[in-house]
Amino acid sequence: MQTINFVTSNLLKLQQVRAILGNDPPFKLVHHSLELPELQASLDEIAINKCITAAAIVDDTVLVEDTALTFSSLNGLPGPYIKTFIQQIGLEGLIRILSDYEDKTAIATSTFAYTEGRNQPVKLFTGTMHGKITKPTSSIPHQANWQSIFQPEGYTTSYAMIEQDQTNKISHRYKALMLLIDYLTK
Amino acid sequence: MQTINFVTSNLLKLQQVRAILGNDPPFKLVHHSLELPELQASLDEIAINKCITAAAIVDDTVLVEDTALTFSSLNGLPGPYIKTFIQQIGLEGLIRILSDYEDKTAIATSTFAYTEGRNQPVKLFTGTMHGKITKPTSSIPHQANWQSIFQPEGYTTSYAMIEQDQTNKISHRYKALMLLIDYLTK
Repeated sequence: MQTINFVTSNLLKLQQVRAILGNDPPFKLVHHSLELPELQASLDEIAINKCITAAAIVDDTVLVEDTALTFSSLNGLPGPYIKTFIQQIGLEGLIRILSDYEDKTAIATSTFAYTEGRNQPVKLFTGTMHGKITKPTSSIPHQANWQSIFQPEGYTTSYAMIEQDQTNKISHRYKALMLLIDYLTK
Repeated sequence: MQTINFVTSNLLKLQQVRAILGNDPPFKLVHHSLELPELQASLDEIAINKCITAAAIVDDTVLVEDTALTFSSLNGLPGPYIKTFIQQIGLEGLIRILSDYEDKTAIATSTFAYTEGRNQPVKLFTGTMHGKITKPTSSIPHQANWQSIFQPEGYTTSYAMIEQDQTNKISHRYKALMLLIDYLTK
């Protein structure tokens, strides 16, 4: 069975990817905890660059993932800077900067970047989830993740309130991971 | 006279630095137009990293500069991402994301990073200018720079409306450059 080195310092991301892969994964996922620098760039460019950097260190197959949350009214922002936005202004701030805009729609995007090794080409696999930014129904910690204020299309609660067996059918990360699996197992 | 290689792809920045240095500059400024990658990081880290990258390419003394615009209400944002914010939402968007906040104060920061060459330590020189975000008095192009909506403390017009011989006494970039000159000529 093929081994793929998943490079991330985000343990929640690792846990989600393992959950999506399930008990009978199509490849062996080996976790490497590396804090990789992220560029000011598009989501694709950030993922490609991290993948190249990680492959140079690990010197083997490498998989990395990056997430963006795009507000339609803000023409792409926060995008790949969603982590910084939450660190600086919290979920309350994400809602407040949209106050003056009627359109609260947003798109969550997950991009996996995969390479077979150092100096090898990088392949991208992208999944999206459409929805809108909503006020949380109950008080949430300042540093909670954006899933608490994101309501996917077709649902009446935030993404954070949906059961995991449900989210794995709709999530941006799930869709992107399925494309990767298709590619690796075809 | 000492030669310093100023690395920037921003010709307006080059022109401003030359204007501040004046007709009798304390060092010879040689321009290198390189598009350097910028990290997702603090202003200091971005400048340090660009300086190291540029010194590895130019293999000589290198000077780079980075600018941030920090909104008090957004706890650091846009910060070093001001260029991306303007690209995505324009000056109108910068004003709109502050709609729900009473505090419109902001700080412009200029950070010069200087090194004597490859693998040499990097020195930082930082200048700031306090002010507030204001609506432009007349219509301005979508891609105009933030000086059109920034009113420095003690002034009643935007920074863009102040004469250049005045701005050179108050600007963040001027203050930072004076610190660099002090360091190089002491």
